[in-house]
Amino acid sequence: MKSFNKYEQQILKQIISARRDVRGNHFIQKEIPKEILEELLSSANNAPSVGFSQPWRFVIIQSKEIRGEIYTEFEKQNTKAKKIFSSNEQYCKLKLEGIKEASLNIAVLYQKPKKEILGQTIQKKMGEYSVVCAIQNFWLTARAYDIGVGWVSILNPKKVKKILDISKEYKLVGYLCVGYVDEFLSAPELETIGWEEKKSLEKVVRWV
Amino acid sequence: MKSFNKYEQQILKQIISARRDVRGNHFIQKEIPKEILEELLSSANNAPSVGFSQPWRFVIIQSKEIRGEIYTEFEKQNTKAKKIFSSNEQYCKLKLEGIKEASLNIAVLYQKPKKEILGQTIQKKMGEYSVVCAIQNFWLTARAYDIGVGWVSILNPKKVKKILDISKEYKLVGYLCVGYVDEFLSAPELETIGWEEKKSLEKVVRWV
Repeated sequence: MKSFNKYEQQILKQIISARRDVRGNHFIQKEIPKEILEELLSSANNAPSVGFSQPWRFVIIQSKEIRGEIYTEFEKQNTKAKKIFSSNEQYCKLKLEGIKEASLNIAVLYQKPKKEILGQTIQKKMGEYSVVCAIQNFWLTARAYDIGVGWVSILNPKKVKKILDISKEYKLVGYLCVGYVDEFLSAPELETIGWEEKKSLEKVVRWV
Repeated sequence: MKSFNKYEQQILKQIISARRDVRGNHFIQKEIPKEILEELLSSANNAPSVGFSQPWRFVIIQSKEIRGEIYTEFEKQNTKAKKIFSSNEQYCKLKLEGIKEASLNIAVLYQKPKKEILGQTIQKKMGEYSVVCAIQNFWLTARAYDIGVGWVSILNPKKVKKILDISKEYKLVGYLCVGYVDEFLSAPELETIGWEEKKSLEKVVRWV
């Protein structure tokens, strides 16, 4: 049985804590070699999945035209969001996506099952959750390769699916901007600007 | 900026591919030291979260009485599931949880927000997805420490919340069995027994 030593445990923890959500002001013009992208996708494809259903699908978007349409959708939704956060002037200053600046965009989909899935009989959301596990594997592996990932959630999933011509069988779980970066910030930007405080373990754990 | 070398990238990929869903037939009687459990929880607490909301909460369940009640709920749901899969005799032979055998159980909750969350204005599920990212960080770090994790999804979340006396403010996202193991299987059990085939990258990726 493969075991990992203290140094190796430390490496994993470092990758986890050095991972950042990267936006357009940090992506650089440098192509991701196909074999490296495949490493990241393989990590995603090795995620846990309910009933070994592997329900994740990845649409790699290179097209600048498509990205332009997605960006227009982002702007529409962000105009609404700006109104919601109008009492906080920091919101408008934040760069919240890297749709055009990143080397690639990836739409991560959940393929709805056509049969019953082991482990998904009572909790129907388990399939989507498996897709999120795949995204997290991708994100961590990207960080290990100095590649940044930003998850853009200020998008209407139905509109994104329409632009990408994706059928009803699929659900959009995540929309990722992926590319090499000039830097990974030493702390999450929203922590640095004081938007939210980092929670201590005591705050999030209780024992029974 | 912290970079990781080829060996370190390899380590991450090995941890990702050596991770398994562990059930009660592989947990052993060995306590998890508190400082190691805290390492795993710290990794979870360093997951990405929408608007830096860190909406995850972990309830560490040691009580045998509570676990007994959870197990009874599992049995009820699994009786229903057995009917659904009655055409496949393999289902009944599978051990699908380790509620009593694992050192600990952990209920992972999503705390619903009391205010608007940055990035969650149109996609309301983003908060839950952040909790799933935390679970995946926990799972990978556990694997690096030779600790197995099994995600039990054949449970009615409402019943679990009732047993744990959890208020409406929280939603159950995952129920984990956590403990040291006799072995990590070399491949997922559902792959080995032929329940599902491993999907190739070609099957899950498309380019536009």
